[in-house]
Amino acid sequence: MVDLPGFPRERATVTADKSGLSRSGSAPFPHPDARDTRLSPVDEWSDLVDNFKRRTKIAKESAGKLSWFDKLAIVLPFLGWLRTYKIKEYLVWDVLAGVTVGFMVVPQGMSYAILAGVPPVYGLYGAFVPVLVYSLFGSSKQLGTGPVAVTSLLIANGVQNMVEYSSWLDPSVPPLSPLWASIQETYNTKVIQLAFVVSLMYTAVGLLRMGWLIRFLSHAVITGFTSGAAFIIASSQVKYILGYSVPRKDTLQENIKVLYDNRADFVWQEFTMGILMIVWLVALRFIGKWKPKLFLLGALGPISACIIGIIVVVGGGKNVSKLIKIVGTIPAGMPPFTANKWLPIEDAPSLLRLAGLVMVVDLLESTSIARALARKNGYRLQYNREIIGLGLANFAGAMFSCYTTTGSFSRSAVNNASGAKTQLAGFITSIVVMFVLLFLTPVFSKLPYNVIGAIIIVGVCQLIEFGVAYHLFKTHVRDFIVWLVAFIGTAFLGVELGLGISIGLALLIVIFETAFPHMAVLGQVNNSSVYRSIEQYADAKVVPGIVIVRLDAPVYFANASYFQDKLEDYEEEGLEVAKANGLEKLNYVILELSPVTKIDATGVAFLEEQLRDYNKRDIQLVLSNPNDDVLRTLQRAGFIANLGRQWVYVCVQDAVTACAKLQSMEGGGSVEHVEPVRKYSRTPAASVASDSPKAAKTVE
Amino acid sequence: MVDLPGFPRERATVTADKSGLSRSGSAPFPHPDARDTRLSPVDEWSDLVDNFKRRTKIAKESAGKLSWFDKLAIVLPFLGWLRTYKIKEYLVWDVLAGVTVGFMVVPQGMSYAILAGVPPVYGLYGAFVPVLVYSLFGSSKQLGTGPVAVTSLLIANGVQNMVEYSSWLDPSVPPLSPLWASIQETYNTKVIQLAFVVSLMYTAVGLLRMGWLIRFLSHAVITGFTSGAAFIIASSQVKYILGYSVPRKDTLQENIKVLYDNRADFVWQEFTMGILMIVWLVALRFIGKWKPKLFLLGALGPISACIIGIIVVVGGGKNVSKLIKIVGTIPAGMPPFTANKWLPIEDAPSLLRLAGLVMVVDLLESTSIARALARKNGYRLQYNREIIGLGLANFAGAMFSCYTTTGSFSRSAVNNASGAKTQLAGFITSIVVMFVLLFLTPVFSKLPYNVIGAIIIVGVCQLIEFGVAYHLFKTHVRDFIVWLVAFIGTAFLGVELGLGISIGLALLIVIFETAFPHMAVLGQVNNSSVYRSIEQYADAKVVPGIVIVRLDAPVYFANASYFQDKLEDYEEEGLEVAKANGLEKLNYVILELSPVTKIDATGVAFLEEQLRDYNKRDIQLVLSNPNDDVLRTLQRAGFIANLGRQWVYVCVQDAVTACAKLQSMEGGGSVEHVEPVRKYSRTPAASVASDSPKAAKTVE
Repeated sequence: MVDLPGFPRERATVTADKSGLSRSGSAPFPHPDARDTRLSPVDEWSDLVDNFKRRTKIAKESAGKLSWFDKLAIVLPFLGWLRTYKIKEYLVWDVLAGVTVGFMVVPQGMSYAILAGVPPVYGLYGAFVPVLVYSLFGSSKQLGTGPVAVTSLLIANGVQNMVEYSSWLDPSVPPLSPLWASIQETYNTKVIQLAFVVSLMYTAVGLLRMGWLIRFLSHAVITGFTSGAAFIIASSQVKYILGYSVPRKDTLQENIKVLYDNRADFVWQEFTMGILMIVWLVALRFIGKWKPKLFLLGALGPISACIIGIIVVVGGGKNVSKLIKIVGTIPAGMPPFTANKWLPIEDAPSLLRLAGLVMVVDLLESTSIARALARKNGYRLQYNREIIGLGLANFAGAMFSCYTTTGSFSRSAVNNASGAKTQLAGFITSIVVMFVLLFLTPVFSKLPYNVIGAIIIVGVCQLIEFGVAYHLFKTHVRDFIVWLVAFIGTAFLGVELGLGISIGLALLIVIFETAFPHMAVLGQVNNSSVYRSIEQYADAKVVPGIVIVRLDAPVYFANASYFQDKLEDYEEEGLEVAKANGLEKLNYVILELSPVTKIDATGVAFLEEQLRDYNKRDIQLVLSNPNDDVLRTLQRAGFIANLGRQWVYVCVQDAVTACAKLQSMEGGGSVEHVEPVRKYSRTPAASVASDSPKAAKTVE
Repeated sequence: MVDLPGFPRERATVTADKSGLSRSGSAPFPHPDARDTRLSPVDEWSDLVDNFKRRTKIAKESAGKLSWFDKLAIVLPFLGWLRTYKIKEYLVWDVLAGVTVGFMVVPQGMSYAILAGVPPVYGLYGAFVPVLVYSLFGSSKQLGTGPVAVTSLLIANGVQNMVEYSSWLDPSVPPLSPLWASIQETYNTKVIQLAFVVSLMYTAVGLLRMGWLIRFLSHAVITGFTSGAAFIIASSQVKYILGYSVPRKDTLQENIKVLYDNRADFVWQEFTMGILMIVWLVALRFIGKWKPKLFLLGALGPISACIIGIIVVVGGGKNVSKLIKIVGTIPAGMPPFTANKWLPIEDAPSLLRLAGLVMVVDLLESTSIARALARKNGYRLQYNREIIGLGLANFAGAMFSCYTTTGSFSRSAVNNASGAKTQLAGFITSIVVMFVLLFLTPVFSKLPYNVIGAIIIVGVCQLIEFGVAYHLFKTHVRDFIVWLVAFIGTAFLGVELGLGISIGLALLIVIFETAFPHMAVLGQVNNSSVYRSIEQYADAKVVPGIVIVRLDAPVYFANASYFQDKLEDYEEEGLEVAKANGLEKLNYVILELSPVTKIDATGVAFLEEQLRDYNKRDIQLVLSNPNDDVLRTLQRAGFIANLGRQWVYVCVQDAVTACAKLQSMEGGGSVEHVEPVRKYSRTPAASVASDSPKAAKTVE
């Protein structure tokens, strides 16, 4: 240690270099950026403007680098992948994957359409138009789009509340009267309108770059929600396995009750066939998982079940047809034009709310799969372009009798596993579906409902993630609670309420954690420049008369008074340590701010009050390691000017060295570090290990 | 640098001491606590149980230290201050302060009761019973309790929605018919019930130690809210100055409209007298501020205005009485017993909601003053005891015809400035009010309403804090926006909605900030052990092949994918730096975790995915400086086991040194730090200063 330029307190002419750091052996200097104690003009606005200008400039520069073809490819993304298409390497795989997914999406699409409460053919339309459009405008190469289970449930639950009596609609029962037919018609129109509104929302979110909104759905919320939704979906399909017709319900317990109440309608032939179908599907999937080379067996399970079912119905003749409900006539040909149904929208608030919910869930499902696939295949996803791609797909879908579509977990996985290289795979899928629409609808009209029920039940079982819940239970109790709330809320209170409550809870936990932040008194570890919590490091040493406190959270309105109260405790304890070492009083309180990423007005007010209080008691407040943002905020508020710029240091080491030196110059105490009186830790010295019992055990 | 024990990667037998820190010249060691890579049993529950046990133990220990008298004083707090009462030092001051505040609270109490929509005498009751009880059970020595303006407004707005036609009730107009009298009776009963429910809530919050809930009201929310409420209050009292009777409204614009619509009823005599009263009150307050020794003038303004008003009415005889509305008969004597009105509570949900709102606002006002006074006078406040004290005061109040009371800003300030030493001052205040109730009610029955209007208007002007707003505008734009939303929302949408929206906004901003956290690539500054953002420190140097990234927020679901995307950018840039320095690829990514105070399940999943990805690309992930909580979470999740415990370091310096050494051993790159290619900063080298233009200007 050499002498300290700029000290003692009266003189603060600092001649340090820009970094302000002490090099080994030289004296510590105050933080260089703190030199300008009061920014002038003292306002935040010029900063904001500067920042905005810089960003705009960067955006312009990076746009300037693009060729005209690149720019065109932004508008027409398929130009991008078509230009670099390697026919020999890609084509076989794309065709194979496309056809496989096509075989999957035909039964899945029809099943999900029934789940959504619309005629089965809507599912085929949804597997054709939007898939085609997405292959041209989407940015994910492997995403398998089309109708999905969870959204179908959301639509059914939402739209049936808007159309009276529609919860009694059952596709397995032909309309008994023109009244029922007209209710179904109203229902279908609502669903189309919903798809239209959702497509507009997608586009808005994409253009406004608001895709980050979905980040607020945590993994725990999503898996809990989908698990709960899977239970509702499965319970709503059991009726097809049992062979009777009951109205659709919103929650698990209502579905179970309605099934139980109507148990007299049980048809054992349907039940037997349904159970066999479930066994068949589970067996195929099990084999697919067991032997990864045979994964296609799992993927082709639904189509094989359909073929078996159709064979049974056709082969069984009239006897079977009487007992087993079948899909019945499916209109052949291209999807009818429906843009004329978009307006007028009645009950717009409800529709908007439902559309918002559907969009968020769809977007989340789609982008999380697309993201994972992009990472796996080593390319980067353009989120906002991806969102616009989904928007266009849904817009085109709403134009041609489709309900909302998005990326499907199961089909995307199969698409990727089958080796899809580009969006051409999706294009092929849509061609397969078109072929079915044009030529094979009479065949699928013989499809029994119990097969559809079996396909949906086995399909949604994949969404039930108790494994995730168990993992969370073991490792992240808070996340587990969120999962549980999402799961139970969704299953027993309904999808909308379940999702809402669990999102709210997850956000509250985040807020709550910053409201009760961790704090630690620091000590020097092993004569190094490293200072750590004296609670955790039993051999950390402190300088009597100086208390170093680390604030472990952004300082803001919800925790400022907490910090303040805790500082009073630490001050008392620091005084005890000082007195135990022959000092009269506490001289310095150093606040280590490195974990403090932000500070708001209440936080600054807290520091100002603290400064005033300490001044009264002749204690010097010292700041260490404020980040740029925090330092600038403190400068703007005039706090650094009040504190004195010489009391802001770049690191704890420098702050302690300077304070210890000053303290000994002023006649009290040594500059040496000593063992703290264990009072700080609020635990007896002997039981310090109980703080981290397992870690302590393993110290050799 | 000596050689590295435990390296290369295959062997990780670390023989470092517990701290794991490199001392000058010796080799860096991995983080000592990371040694136990997988906690066993791998669950969070034993930690939680340990923690709970420790806390219970501490609580028991500290309770064991108390004497029987201390324990009794917890239940009967007045024993505490009575025992240590110093008659010679305290008594004069307590009596002086108590009497002064008594003179304030009589006119204020009557005025606020009228604002709350109950008869003026309720305000006197409220300044007697609860003040007496609080002086016995409260923990703040200087808090001046009783009726306050904002709560009176909340009650009026809330209860008038529960009692039909009650918004037409006007205390300045005597009831015209038994119907109106019965409406007023219902209204009063509701107000008493409200006080009862609020007192129960206080007690519950105090016993459950939930007082921290009010911390979620930020300073910006409170000042914006009270400013907006002050405008509504003032606008609702203008009618008394103008001399006419109009129904009470919820918002500023409705109040103005109703005044404008009834302009024909204007009474110039009332107006002249009211304006003169306002001038008188403002003048006294101004003198009180100008000459701090005369602050009592400001405090005694209301009572002097009352005396003048009464003299004018009494002296003016019948001519004046016809033109000027006066309070009229005030029942003399002790407050009537009202506990019999507590039940049955009709419309319980509305009442509960209103009670919650009133309690939160009251509690906030009271504890923030009590807290500030305690700090000023050098004692500590027991929050939960304080809350129970308020609960008891309100409970007793509800028993004897009082509406809710709490600590008042203005009276507490005067109490403190007059030198109140103990709760005896409050006791004296209540005796003064009792004296008024017993003997002086006939005098106050002559009090004109325009005086009351003037007292309220001048009183609430203190609550308007445009100065705070301007300060926030200049220094904390986000807090300013919250202030503005609270102010405009309260004034124009009503108190409940205004408060709700602004609290929601303040919390959203907190969430939002952690969702888009700051990140920085670090470089070594001046060959020291300090690493700082290379964007901020132009001379910071990096080691090619190694990227150090600091994550500036807790890692959780809303920002994990943001961190992930940003890391891809940094990896690309790090690769460029590496190639520019003759390396083939990036070898190490060091994540500096010191600002990461928490990590949740999604955060861990992000790190796991990052680790897998880096492994694929043969990049080693290294963690530096995780805090205890984060480290334990990572251990529980098995992440440290996957990463390898040798890749966790106590500080950046150690991590860099170890990685650089390994990198050069494996044949690539030097261990020296070099100037980074400026690519990292995403700003041209020349314009780096634009990041902090003002700070840069002042560098000598």
